[in-house]
Amino acid sequence: MSLGIAVIGTGKMGADHVRRIHRTTSGAHVAAVADPDEARAKEAAAGIDCAVHTDPAAALSAPGVDAVLVASPGPAHEATLLAAFDRGLPVLCEKPLTPDAAGAARIVAAEQRLGRRLVQVGFMRRYDSEYVRLKALLDGGSLGRPLMLHCRHRNASSPSFFTTEMLVNDSVVHEVDATRWLLGQEITAVTVLRPAPSSYAPPALADPQLVLFETDGGAVVDVEIFVNCGFGYQVRCEAVCERGSAEIGTGQEHALTVQSAVDGRGRRGGEIPPDYVVRFADAYDRQVQAWVDATHEGRVEGPGAWDGYAAAAVSEAGVRAQRTGERVPVLLRERPALYA
Amino acid sequence: MSLGIAVIGTGKMGADHVRRIHRTTSGAHVAAVADPDEARAKEAAAGIDCAVHTDPAAALSAPGVDAVLVASPGPAHEATLLAAFDRGLPVLCEKPLTPDAAGAARIVAAEQRLGRRLVQVGFMRRYDSEYVRLKALLDGGSLGRPLMLHCRHRNASSPSFFTTEMLVNDSVVHEVDATRWLLGQEITAVTVLRPAPSSYAPPALADPQLVLFETDGGAVVDVEIFVNCGFGYQVRCEAVCERGSAEIGTGQEHALTVQSAVDGRGRRGGEIPPDYVVRFADAYDRQVQAWVDATHEGRVEGPGAWDGYAAAAVSEAGVRAQRTGERVPVLLRERPALYA
Amino acid sequence: MSLGIAVIGTGKMGADHVRRIHRTTSGAHVAAVADPDEARAKEAAAGIDCAVHTDPAAALSAPGVDAVLVASPGPAHEATLLAAFDRGLPVLCEKPLTPDAAGAARIVAAEQRLGRRLVQVGFMRRYDSEYVRLKALLDGGSLGRPLMLHCRHRNASSPSFFTTEMLVNDSVVHEVDATRWLLGQEITAVTVLRPAPSSYAPPALADPQLVLFETDGGAVVDVEIFVNCGFGYQVRCEAVCERGSAEIGTGQEHALTVQSAVDGRGRRGGEIPPDYVVRFADAYDRQVQAWVDATHEGRVEGPGAWDGYAAAAVSEAGVRAQRTGERVPVLLRERPALYA
Amino acid sequence: MSLGIAVIGTGKMGADHVRRIHRTTSGAHVAAVADPDEARAKEAAAGIDCAVHTDPAAALSAPGVDAVLVASPGPAHEATLLAAFDRGLPVLCEKPLTPDAAGAARIVAAEQRLGRRLVQVGFMRRYDSEYVRLKALLDGGSLGRPLMLHCRHRNASSPSFFTTEMLVNDSVVHEVDATRWLLGQEITAVTVLRPAPSSYAPPALADPQLVLFETDGGAVVDVEIFVNCGFGYQVRCEAVCERGSAEIGTGQEHALTVQSAVDGRGRRGGEIPPDYVVRFADAYDRQVQAWVDATHEGRVEGPGAWDGYAAAAVSEAGVRAQRTGERVPVLLRERPALYA
Repeated sequence: MSLGIAVIGTGKMGADHVRRIHRTTSGAHVAAVADPDEARAKEAAAGIDCAVHTDPAAALSAPGVDAVLVASPGPAHEATLLAAFDRGLPVLCEKPLTPDAAGAARIVAAEQRLGRRLVQVGFMRRYDSEYVRLKALLDGGSLGRPLMLHCRHRNASSPSFFTTEMLVNDSVVHEVDATRWLLGQEITAVTVLRPAPSSYAPPALADPQLVLFETDGGAVVDVEIFVNCGFGYQVRCEAVCERGSAEIGTGQEHALTVQSAVDGRGRRGGEIPPDYVVRFADAYDRQVQAWVDATHEGRVEGPGAWDGYAAAAVSEAGVRAQRTGERVPVLLRERPALYA
Repeated sequence: MSLGIAVIGTGKMGADHVRRIHRTTSGAHVAAVADPDEARAKEAAAGIDCAVHTDPAAALSAPGVDAVLVASPGPAHEATLLAAFDRGLPVLCEKPLTPDAAGAARIVAAEQRLGRRLVQVGFMRRYDSEYVRLKALLDGGSLGRPLMLHCRHRNASSPSFFTTEMLVNDSVVHEVDATRWLLGQEITAVTVLRPAPSSYAPPALADPQLVLFETDGGAVVDVEIFVNCGFGYQVRCEAVCERGSAEIGTGQEHALTVQSAVDGRGRRGGEIPPDYVVRFADAYDRQVQAWVDATHEGRVEGPGAWDGYAAAAVSEAGVRAQRTGERVPVLLRERPALYA
Repeated sequence: MSLGIAVIGTGKMGADHVRRIHRTTSGAHVAAVADPDEARAKEAAAGIDCAVHTDPAAALSAPGVDAVLVASPGPAHEATLLAAFDRGLPVLCEKPLTPDAAGAARIVAAEQRLGRRLVQVGFMRRYDSEYVRLKALLDGGSLGRPLMLHCRHRNASSPSFFTTEMLVNDSVVHEVDATRWLLGQEITAVTVLRPAPSSYAPPALADPQLVLFETDGGAVVDVEIFVNCGFGYQVRCEAVCERGSAEIGTGQEHALTVQSAVDGRGRRGGEIPPDYVVRFADAYDRQVQAWVDATHEGRVEGPGAWDGYAAAAVSEAGVRAQRTGERVPVLLRERPALYA
Repeated sequence: MSLGIAVIGTGKMGADHVRRIHRTTSGAHVAAVADPDEARAKEAAAGIDCAVHTDPAAALSAPGVDAVLVASPGPAHEATLLAAFDRGLPVLCEKPLTPDAAGAARIVAAEQRLGRRLVQVGFMRRYDSEYVRLKALLDGGSLGRPLMLHCRHRNASSPSFFTTEMLVNDSVVHEVDATRWLLGQEITAVTVLRPAPSSYAPPALADPQLVLFETDGGAVVDVEIFVNCGFGYQVRCEAVCERGSAEIGTGQEHALTVQSAVDGRGRRGGEIPPDYVVRFADAYDRQVQAWVDATHEGRVEGPGAWDGYAAAAVSEAGVRAQRTGERVPVLLRERPALYA
């Protein structure tokens, strides 16, 4: 029994999901696509036997739709999620769950009313093999309790629409989720230090920054966010524990030794992936496959609405910390029993 | 349209392929399984809606069978391959294509009579991401012509049935194919040097060995084969080219820094995978997916019958080189136009 | 002409300097030693033709003394330095120059009165080959302006007398000097974050900590100080610049691949040095040789009294930041022209 | 008591030794220099209070000469060594001891007549910290018996006078000594495989080559010698043992991450030293210091005349193996008791 999926939003990310479900995912097929831009929707669906709509609601009610993958812009998520809830459809929703914590809290409330969870949020790092092994290592306990995480999040360059706030709520939000997941702790405060910006960053962008988290388990996390580093996409995390340290993101497949055309010196080293599509290609594949497998079995797993809410709340505190230069506490609502 | 696959042989490797096709591969399903041990066949097929046979021929003619995956013992391959040819079924055949070069030559002859290729041989390293990138790098030409390959092929320990000959024809055969594929050259001579065996190897096993290839393109290849190295499964390859060197198999995902319980010293490093199942998990998945995708499109790609024949011929020379201590030339038949 | 050196203080560090000057340094010899513990002084001087005193002043006036190496406890430095100044003797003074910023300011004032510099402070990292190359790389400008430094300073375990304050003023003080030297900037503020301490640290010790510097050039520096990490002595520094990043302290001489006796897994990696004596052995040798060479030529180079003062001032701010949890500004005096 | 050293030969290597003894070595000074080119001798001795001669014999008998460092061309070594023996002077002789095995055998015979050893041969790798630790590791026994060594010896480019024979008797001779020393075994046979030469090597040079040693302890050693690799000077050695593998030469001090100006890709890696002067700078310093220290104590240690002879004998077999393409046995004389 193949799972029929409606893909809502066929921009870059949505079109990639359409391709993935059609070509890579086992046990699922694209049953419908929706995009306000009909031409774009048709292009994404080319060669696939599926319904094509401009209205998300129409796609949700297309024949053979068993589940929904939401890849539309963040402000459109809430309406689609609620519509999917009305139909009892499981949803894999790209991050952010909603643009702000208040919206995310409404999704949490909606699931509470339903009495069950339907949403998985697309924090795909939880499916990356390096992160998975780091999590297993920390949970295994051989290194003792984690004390600090040192994170680096670097992009070669930022798109033209990128704002200083997005350093936190679009980029560092991945470290927010990774921190919460790896440590099993909530973030209680955020501080941001801003060095003099790189002269290669766009004039209005305060890039890079050092974002600091404190957690309710007593851990301290520092995140370098640098979205115009020039050399590629590099995501690193070192977990410093009581009895040892574990790092991901510093390894490489190839070691290439060549003479540099720049300075004539020989160097031996590995390549940095150009972007997140390359770096997390397998994570995206595994995320969707895991969601499909869980859905077949009637389960919901992975990061849920509560995680989407917490990430949004920390992001909001982070943006205030950016603006004020102060340490900003994170005030989360009570965690409902549904997400215990 | 999902491709119906008959899996012939449900031992460890075959059962794993059944699971893979059922759970991981997109666009395919298990249509039939066959194993002389009916209980084992049924166990592999548990929970899957497919035919179960003890006779390979019966499985090939089961309803809905569009293609065949052969994972039975090597001596049984030839009969199954010829039966599949009679039905015009595409085949993915685990290595070795046949146990000896003469048998492989008969498969080549059979495809020539058919006038088309139907077989892909399961040299899965060609689908490993590290090998794929090394191949692309060499083909790209930026490093100049490859001059030497330095290969390491290490297993933690060898199974009880392993023989000295198998160091070459079961293990190094992967480097035979990798050499031919990476360089696009044929191997013309084999020499084997045998150090005093490790005291941790079984008494009858001359382990490790250094196997040397010369190619018709003037390259020299050395392969350390060591099947009782103790520490894990490690496959490395350094391609030394005119303008630089590229290595695979030395990287790692994690860098773990811990104090050793043995000598009290701290070390920082990465983990060695325990076995080929872990090391080449993705390569197996990609191999089967690529074969399914190509079959859907009516193509045959990847290593074919000629590659299976050449690997067998080099292996036979290698075993003679082991026994005699001499440099043994490899004498290949003329390569048929079908495999140009 | 060999330089006659009086070594003041023959504890662990001083005795090591006596051995170094006697056996390793070219162009110098030990002319006198002094230690309140006469037996210890004699033991350090065993086999060396030199004067042995319990009084530092007596050692300074011993025949053939051309220069002084101060390795006594910090509180004793000021008197010895002023006595050496009276005699116009060049001094290499182990860090700290003095225990507090006020004392260091008095040394600065004394040199100003002399109208020339006589003191080099023993910040030996400036002579470590890794740091030297990092400094050259940053100064070379190919990476653009440095934006952040990420530092790790880890000891296997702390001695019994170690206090929480010493995490900053005894350990992180090395990063204070390294930051000032690498960037050529003054540190303007310190913040300290304290995770829940490791359960392997002594009960009274708040270990580890994350110490943050801001500089007058707009750089941000984070320093993990962890003096009970268990696995060895590890000093790392990553300089994140506008056009690339450079790391030191992650390399290794050996890559050892062995099966772990703990978990049975194979790992490939390099050894962490056990302590600073091993890690910085060459740096100590080079520091003393460079000081001897400069003294022969009538020059004073390396970190001077001003650097000792600035390090003390930042350390004092750091200790306040530890205690208060606040961001503490560093208020330096005007830098005298002598140290321009 | 400072050791007075006569440096014979003030070409590049000899002049460097003069500088080293004058500036770096503790407990020694340059007492005399000799070079047929008087201007060159004077230039090397500039600023040093020492005798300057054109005749080696005159330098040996200059006042205050206690020991000799021979850095003249190989053909001149024998006469100088015998003259030093006549005076009972300890000698540190740059490699090769003599240009051929017959000459080296005469040096061995001369020491036997003296009844004591006076010569140390300049195989400086034995003083390199990486090699020293590898040797200690192998001797420590934790890895079991060494089975194979995989060696790489690469130069950026070869000087104009370099010949194919010199790949073996000038370059690989270092691996000959390293193999004998690391394993404590004699080399019994040499085989050479010659790939099609790099198009970047001079036309007459068969570069690179793969040189294979067999030892009397049953080990197998492969050495890639590539003197026009383009990217730098790289000396690597992996010792594959029964219970693990240890590699040197793959580490690095810096990890630099930058975007390549060639292909626009980011890479993280370490620098390859440009030449042996940089790579083995410390080894040369330590070699001379160890020789001076041993001489002070009346000891001779390090590689001696027998090692020089054995290296010459293996080199001669290696050159024959190059020419014939055959496996060439090494026939050593009986090892005299003096070198037991």
